[in-house]
Amino acid sequence: MSESTYHGVLSCDKALELFLSELRTPFLDVLEVSIFDSINHVLAEDVLSPVDVPPFDRAAMDGYAVRAEDVFSASESNPIPLRIIGQSIIGSPFTDSVGPGETIQIDTGAKMPEGTNAVVPKEYVERSGDTALVLRSVAPYENVSKRGEDIKRGDVILRKGLRISSYDVSILKSALVSRVKVYRWPRVAIFSCGNELVDEAQEEELTRYGKVIDSSRTMIHNLLRENFCEVIDLGIVRDDPEAIKRKILEAKERADLLVTLGGTSIGERDFVPEAVRSIEGARIVVRGVSMRPGKPVVLSFINDFPIISLPGPPVAAFLGFLFFVKPVLDKLSGIRGVYVPRIIRGTLTKRLPSRPGIKHIARVRVVRQDNEYFVHPIRITGAGVLSSIVKADGLVIVPEDVEGYEVGDSVEVVLLRDRIGVWDEEDL
Amino acid sequence: MSESTYHGVLSCDKALELFLSELRTPFLDVLEVSIFDSINHVLAEDVLSPVDVPPFDRAAMDGYAVRAEDVFSASESNPIPLRIIGQSIIGSPFTDSVGPGETIQIDTGAKMPEGTNAVVPKEYVERSGDTALVLRSVAPYENVSKRGEDIKRGDVILRKGLRISSYDVSILKSALVSRVKVYRWPRVAIFSCGNELVDEAQEEELTRYGKVIDSSRTMIHNLLRENFCEVIDLGIVRDDPEAIKRKILEAKERADLLVTLGGTSIGERDFVPEAVRSIEGARIVVRGVSMRPGKPVVLSFINDFPIISLPGPPVAAFLGFLFFVKPVLDKLSGIRGVYVPRIIRGTLTKRLPSRPGIKHIARVRVVRQDNEYFVHPIRITGAGVLSSIVKADGLVIVPEDVEGYEVGDSVEVVLLRDRIGVWDEEDL
Repeated sequence: MSESTYHGVLSCDKALELFLSELRTPFLDVLEVSIFDSINHVLAEDVLSPVDVPPFDRAAMDGYAVRAEDVFSASESNPIPLRIIGQSIIGSPFTDSVGPGETIQIDTGAKMPEGTNAVVPKEYVERSGDTALVLRSVAPYENVSKRGEDIKRGDVILRKGLRISSYDVSILKSALVSRVKVYRWPRVAIFSCGNELVDEAQEEELTRYGKVIDSSRTMIHNLLRENFCEVIDLGIVRDDPEAIKRKILEAKERADLLVTLGGTSIGERDFVPEAVRSIEGARIVVRGVSMRPGKPVVLSFINDFPIISLPGPPVAAFLGFLFFVKPVLDKLSGIRGVYVPRIIRGTLTKRLPSRPGIKHIARVRVVRQDNEYFVHPIRITGAGVLSSIVKADGLVIVPEDVEGYEVGDSVEVVLLRDRIGVWDEEDL
Repeated sequence: MSESTYHGVLSCDKALELFLSELRTPFLDVLEVSIFDSINHVLAEDVLSPVDVPPFDRAAMDGYAVRAEDVFSASESNPIPLRIIGQSIIGSPFTDSVGPGETIQIDTGAKMPEGTNAVVPKEYVERSGDTALVLRSVAPYENVSKRGEDIKRGDVILRKGLRISSYDVSILKSALVSRVKVYRWPRVAIFSCGNELVDEAQEEELTRYGKVIDSSRTMIHNLLRENFCEVIDLGIVRDDPEAIKRKILEAKERADLLVTLGGTSIGERDFVPEAVRSIEGARIVVRGVSMRPGKPVVLSFINDFPIISLPGPPVAAFLGFLFFVKPVLDKLSGIRGVYVPRIIRGTLTKRLPSRPGIKHIARVRVVRQDNEYFVHPIRITGAGVLSSIVKADGLVIVPEDVEGYEVGDSVEVVLLRDRIGVWDEEDL
């Protein structure tokens, strides 16, 4: 199978859709964990509040807690006297009941005592000794934050499928929820395939023996961890179908998903798909996608066990991660909603040619000038040049049905970091 | 000092600028760590490559490695015969020199042997026995990926001030860099202030004693960890200036920055600024900002030690984190570039009123319909209602100089999660 066979085989979207439609989910075990350990986990249940938050009516102003009906007729010309029988301050509520004709002084946020239902702001009260002269009326619940204003008992606080963030933990704590059910982290096995690969070496060894440092596996390992996976790193395998087959079977025993790197591209070194095919229950769903760089993506299953085989060169591996591994992880994790990349829209400063039918991914630098963004392509092709990713601010994706972009076009840049301006002009 | 004193005191940008201008940086210690432990750390030095990557010239096509000068005149009508003396495959290079009139077979990615400088693709070679008949000419370095194509010896691989990501580690590995100098994590102390606060309780205790769960501190603790800080959590302090002063002094001993929660807003319970002021070397730089919710932000120093005092209610605390703590951490960490939030642009479905001179922050839901985003405000004010953050997709910020947005306006939404569609319609 020559490389060109991959052209136009399947669009990325179609390939992903095919693979996802066969992915059995969610099949991760459910754990019960303390809310403080739950961060970044995906909820395996809807969480309902066992309580009202806040748990009592609170004053929303500094003033006097009253029964609204006692002061219905109050005005500057008709001040109504109430007897002050105490005060409620934050953390030290007034614990008795307040009767008709009585009031207490109250601070913003303090608990409203029994018998009261409104707060007269202090500006509308003249105090003399134990008497409060109320100078205006208030409606029931005026200047009161009601019990359950934030969350009502029985309300859904958090939805199943949510990835728990900082403020989610904090709302669980507010609602007195101490433990929640979450999915365990997905376990993802990885290995690289190639006789030339080594994990470390002196420069001279590389030069003399034509060896290559396996940087792609390190990158994918770290990307998986950033995406909250437990990584089972099976190292480097030689270009030997039997050895590859053994690693695949090991991964199937230990992991929920396998990501392989290398050994997918060229006819004579097509070791990974060959090894997959030799295993009982194997089903190759996708064999190459119309993306550049990154064509030789192979998506397969051994029975229910999903395998994503990416090309070995680092840029192609990175793009394969973004476009295939990440969405598969999302589905596999049972996560809700649609991922939104960090995007900037800017003006293209150089033509981006593209062959129709192929999704081209250009690495670009984004420069802000006079409140506008300018997008400078730094590299359009090349699967192996890792520095084109490291030194890029983002990617411009030219879809299959677009024949490139012209100078001056407004284009979307998917940012690779959460900031721009990390590089100097001379770093290009 | 009444709450209204904060109105229009200082714009958020001006307040932040004032505080940042006095912040001494970078003052974090430098550590040397293994590249595999360096992820998410900020580089404390430029890293130069000690080697060329790739370390040798490689074939960019399957074919025959030749001296270009040997086949300058080759064509279909004038095939040039070369003697095949071996092959170079990936990981097993041909180690001898190739002489005039000689060639070797070579695979894509394999090392170019000494004496050769171009590759004739296999389609242009007719092989018979040990003879390769070359049917076209090649220019020097045609179909060759040159040594150092990705990185040249001495090139800056990564810039000081970069937060190291997955692919940065991997380029360091490629360049045989095993250790790098990074700043240690910033140490940030936090405490909450309030007699009403508790870390856990039964519902009945909350109701009876008017206690409140300290959810803001948990949120800020987790946000700090997400932002790569070491958190020194000093717990809850009572509304007692002496106790607060002791905590501030403890924080100053142990941390690079202190974030306090609560005790900043209302005249009589203005404990935190009061405690700060009582310490020698104290300087209150900002006392309130024109932001709603979140006005009572206090920014101060004890000599060089920075203190950010945020209001206690969770929404105000969260916004204070976004607008003040995060940029301060970025400067303090010595990080380069400008943070770019995750933004979606959509059409507003409900009026967002705003008072000029105040930055209003509305919580909104984003719904995608027919390829367009619609932005539904779910809450405009209210500092205490944490569910308005939890159940929002993002924030619409109405700047000080804008008098609100109208229905149909195109607005930017700063997303709070990395996805939308996490919530159902009925969760609103």
